[in-house]
Order: sequence, then C-alpha cells, then structure tokens
Amino acid sequence: MTIVTPLHELCEPRSALDPARFRQALGAFATGVTIITTQAEDGMPVGVTANSFNSVSLEPPMVLWSLARKSGSCPAFISAEHWAVHILAWDQHELSSRFARPISGAEKFADLAWELDSDGNPLLSGCTTRMQCRTVHMYDGGDHIIFVGEVIGLEKNDVPPLVFQGGNYAIATSTRQAVPPPVDEDPRNVSANSSLGYLLASASLYYNARIYSQAKLLNVTEVEHLVLMALYEREARTCDEIITLVNYTGRSIGIESINDLEARELVRIDDESGCADSENLMIHLTDTGREVAARLNAESERLEMAIMEQLGTADTLALCNLLSRFNRIYRPMIPYRWF
Amino acid sequence: MTIVTPLHELCEPRSALDPARFRQALGAFATGVTIITTQAEDGMPVGVTANSFNSVSLEPPMVLWSLARKSGSCPAFISAEHWAVHILAWDQHELSSRFARPISGAEKFADLAWELDSDGNPLLSGCTTRMQCRTVHMYDGGDHIIFVGEVIGLEKNDVPPLVFQGGNYAIATSTRQAVPPPVDEDPRNVSANSSLGYLLASASLYYNARIYSQAKLLNVTEVEHLVLMALYEREARTCDEIITLVNYTGRSIGIESINDLEARELVRIDDESGCADSENLMIHLTDTGREVAARLNAESERLEMAIMEQLGTADTLALCNLLSRFNRIYRPMIPYRWF
Repeated sequence: MTIVTPLHELCEPRSALDPARFRQALGAFATGVTIITTQAEDGMPVGVTANSFNSVSLEPPMVLWSLARKSGSCPAFISAEHWAVHILAWDQHELSSRFARPISGAEKFADLAWELDSDGNPLLSGCTTRMQCRTVHMYDGGDHIIFVGEVIGLEKNDVPPLVFQGGNYAIATSTRQAVPPPVDEDPRNVSANSSLGYLLASASLYYNARIYSQAKLLNVTEVEHLVLMALYEREARTCDEIITLVNYTGRSIGIESINDLEARELVRIDDESGCADSENLMIHLTDTGREVAARLNAESERLEMAIMEQLGTADTLALCNLLSRFNRIYRPMIPYRWF
Repeated sequence: MTIVTPLHELCEPRSALDPARFRQALGAFATGVTIITTQAEDGMPVGVTANSFNSVSLEPPMVLWSLARKSGSCPAFISAEHWAVHILAWDQHELSSRFARPISGAEKFADLAWELDSDGNPLLSGCTTRMQCRTVHMYDGGDHIIFVGEVIGLEKNDVPPLVFQGGNYAIATSTRQAVPPPVDEDPRNVSANSSLGYLLASASLYYNARIYSQAKLLNVTEVEHLVLMALYEREARTCDEIITLVNYTGRSIGIESINDLEARELVRIDDESGCADSENLMIHLTDTGREVAARLNAESERLEMAIMEQLGTADTLALCNLLSRFNRIYRPMIPYRWF
C-alpha cells in the first residue's frame, strides 16, 4: 500500500506558529492513551504510544491515528496490513511511557506478557479495550502519516481508562449530577451550601457515622474506636501521643479512657520509666484488643468496598487521589499522622 | 477543493461488527470536546460539536476532525476554506449539547455572543482554546469525511477543559504524585494507609485545624464556631437542633455553651413557649454575632480560595463534585444538614 498523495500540496504557512506554543495549546484537549502494535517484516513486535487515536466512521467501523514520519516504527506500520489498538487503563501509565520511548520493539516488549493474534499483531493485556484493525487508508498529515483502519475485532474490559491532559496522566470524573433530593425532604436539609469545607466535613461525618454504628455493635465507643485503630496501625504509642491524636478529632479523651480500655483487657499499659508519667506510659494492644481492632478494621474495609461499588472505581480512585493531594498541602497542621 | 479518492477502495468487512457495540467500545477512549465553526456559502454561521478532533502534525501545525457525510453542516465545511476549532471549557456542556443537535446554524447561534474572524469564521467565547484553520486535505473516512487543517492562529485561556468519556461529560484529575514527603520527617508520620476513610478524616481535620486557628483569633472556640456558622447559614434554629448538629461532630455541647454565647452577646435566646424547654428555645444571632459569623465565613472563603489556587481549579471542582456525590449516597445518616 502506498501513501495517498494529497491533491493540494501544502501552501506556505500564512503565519509561522511556534511549535512549542502549538503543542501546549493541544494539551488543552484531553485524550485517552493508546498503544498501537503490529509485526515488523522481520517478525519482531512493534508498538508505539499514541494519543492521536480517534473514531472516524461507524458503518463501516473505522478508527484513525497518526505517527511521526521520523519514528523508527513508521516503516513497520507502513508495510503492515494489520495493527491492534490498546486503549490503556488508568493504571497503565508506565506502559504508556515505555512505548513512547525511542527504543527498539524488542526492548519495549521485554518482560511483558503478550501474545500474537491471528493477524500477527502483538496483544498486550490489562487494557480497557483492544481493537484489531486492517489498514484501509494511509494519508499525508504533514510530519505525520494518518493511518485509517477498519475495526475487524474488539474486546472490552470494564476498567476505567487512562487520560492524558496538559502533559499529565489523569482520571476523568463525570460531572453528571446525581439524582436530585426527594421533594418531600425535611426543609432543614435543603442547603445551597456546596463549599469544599462543608462537603468535606459532611463526608467525614457521614463516613464516621457508619463506622461508629459498627463499633457500637462491638461495645466500642467512638473514642475507643479511635484509640484501637491508632494502635492497630502502629503498636506501642505513648499515652500522650494517643491523647493528642484523639483530641485533634474534637473528641475528649484523658488517661481515664485508656484506663477503662485496660480494665476491659483491650490494651496493656507499660510504665517503662516507673514514674507513671503519661509521656512515658506505653500503650499496647492485648490479644483481645487486637482481635477487636481487626474486626473494626475489616468493617471499615467492607464499608470502603461498598462505597467503591456505588461511586464506581474511577471516581473512588479520583477521590482518594484528590484527598491525598489536598492532605499533602495541609499535612503540617497535625503533629502525628492519625494511624 | 475536492475529496481525495482513496487508492484502495474499502474491501468487504471481514466481520460485521455491531455499530452499537463499536460505539460503546469507543466510549472507553476519553476525549475533549470541540465545536468547529465556519461560514456557509449564504453567509450563515455553521457549527458542529466534534470529539473526533486531534492533532496531526507539529511542523507544519496541523489538526484533524471528522464529520458525518449525512450531517446537514457537511456541505458548508466541504465548500469552506477556513474553519475555527473551539476546545470547550469544563462548564460548556450545554453549548456542546446545543451544537450536537440537528438544528440549523441560525438556531445554534441564537442568543450567543459570537463574532466573525478575518476569515469569516464565527468565534464563540469562554473556551479553553481557539484555533483558526485553513483546510489542507479532505479525506475519505467511511461514513465520515476527515478534515485536515493547518493551524494559522490560536488563542489560549487558562480554563480547565471539558472531557467526554463513556457517554458522560467529565473533568480530568491528574494522577501525578505530589512531591514525596521529606526524608527527615518524624517517622510517626510515615504511614502506608491511604484508605478513603483515613484520607477523608485527615482532610477534614486539616481543614478544620485551619478554620479553628482563625476562629481562635476572634476568641471563638471550635464549638462556638460551629454554632455561629449553623446560625449564619440559616437563622433561628431550636436549641435542640443546634445541640444535635454539634454533637454529630464529636464535640461536646450543652445548653451552657449557648448560654455562654448569649452572655457574650453573640446570640439571643427566645423562649417562645415560656416553658424554658430546649426544644422550644429559639436561638438567633445578634448583630455582633452576625458580624463575627460573617468574618469567620469570609475566612473560610479565603481559605477555600487558597486551596483552589494550590490544588488548581479543575481538581478543586472535581473534589467538590466527588464529595457531593459521596454525600448523596450517605446523606440519610444525619438528621439535619449542617448549615
């Protein structure tokens, strides 16, 4: 197959656009990320990262993408009759970076699990979608060649896709509104307030209300839950450290709460210095305490799974990601990490 | 200009791919959203929504997009020599839907602020990026025509772009990691825990720590801050309602805290029934109380602006959006909305 020659040759550019500025402007257009693979004439696997992929035609089903003429993989795609498109999943950014590097196909595919399809395309796994294509057109596109292919086979996984925007990998979060509140709702609950602080406080309170209702079933109070979880994550904290942590949540705690946990054989208090000073009292979980903490922790994990199911994987991931970025901006405000 | 005839005519499809399944599979590839405009031969403005836009060539700067042959706007774009690409901003989904409808150009542009550029392209405002293009190629693309244009002018705003994925409008959230924690950090702060519950609790605590440090400067305690803000958002709540709300945050409050606020002339207590029953005591802000509350509220807004600046507009929006969706799933757990 030869490259179609355009009827109209490129005229001289009317204005010389700075390539760096042009590239930066293109970053405002979000795209998914694909890896396109084929087999070179010598039988070696070839693959390139491309975000220039897009749909063209529905009937017949056709897609396109473009490849730099100077790319080392270009000759293989020009001579190939078939290629496979892999739309990458949210966690495949390393694969994307690897296939974007100017290294040989052998290096790109080294250590990867891949297989050949019936048309000779190397297939990678873990993607959201794979499409097997047959070249229909190769068009001139300036310093790139536009490959148009008919889609002859496809497979789809239900995994959130990787997004590329402004030079960074990203996850897309739907802005579709959830169902509006019921009209017969308590009017005290209707609020126009959607400030970040309000949303954050509410989310945290709602989540805690669930967690604490589980703790209650195990005869553990909110404060005790906090203490047990702090010790479950990292054993042996000083009494002072625990009190500081709990006080940060706005809940009142003193040495008597710790003594109460000891009386119920959930924690053990070691006075290492012998001076009964709360700075030196080390608190440990007993076997019973560790068992209760493990059950509480399992409940949290179950709750988190339930949220993930209702919110969807991509949105849960995006939410965790954004909160974690938010927390990195604000972390110096609290002396110890909670867990 | 005529459409380039492909050298190789389309062969019969090897497998008949279901168009609905194909369309659904394409949804896994996220895209930005553009509106492409031009002028019809009769001088009327023409515009279509296209997410098939993508970059092609850097030198010369070239972009492409495709349009269904059966689109009513197709003749105008085939005869036009110039067109303008508008990469839409995150809040332009209504514009996107309007230009995707099969209505006349006149209807699409009605009530919109638009102007003509020097090439006769109607320009819309509020987009992230506008590119003025000159048609270089029109290629066959099955039931679509592929328009390839040279970019002869561009303008860029710093606004987060609109994303389209899986049939929904979305915002993209970068998954790039923030700077790693400093190596000399207190080892008690190093935790592998990144569960949603932990992140949510930390974020809320960090945010509150900032808010409360502001309140302290105005001689207002954490609990008093909660009471004042609850009354600032909605005046005249019963004493019972306020106590329930505050208790939900884990902070202790009783009627004595309200009495203390009254003694400091920040609130006024009206006993409407005369029986001094906390269910009937109505709490109002005094003029001084409202002034203090307004200052506290202004501080929250200032903090939120500062976060928005550090986190970026798109991420702040995405975070608010996700928290709001999270809260809609969990809202029934708290009897009254906080504000």
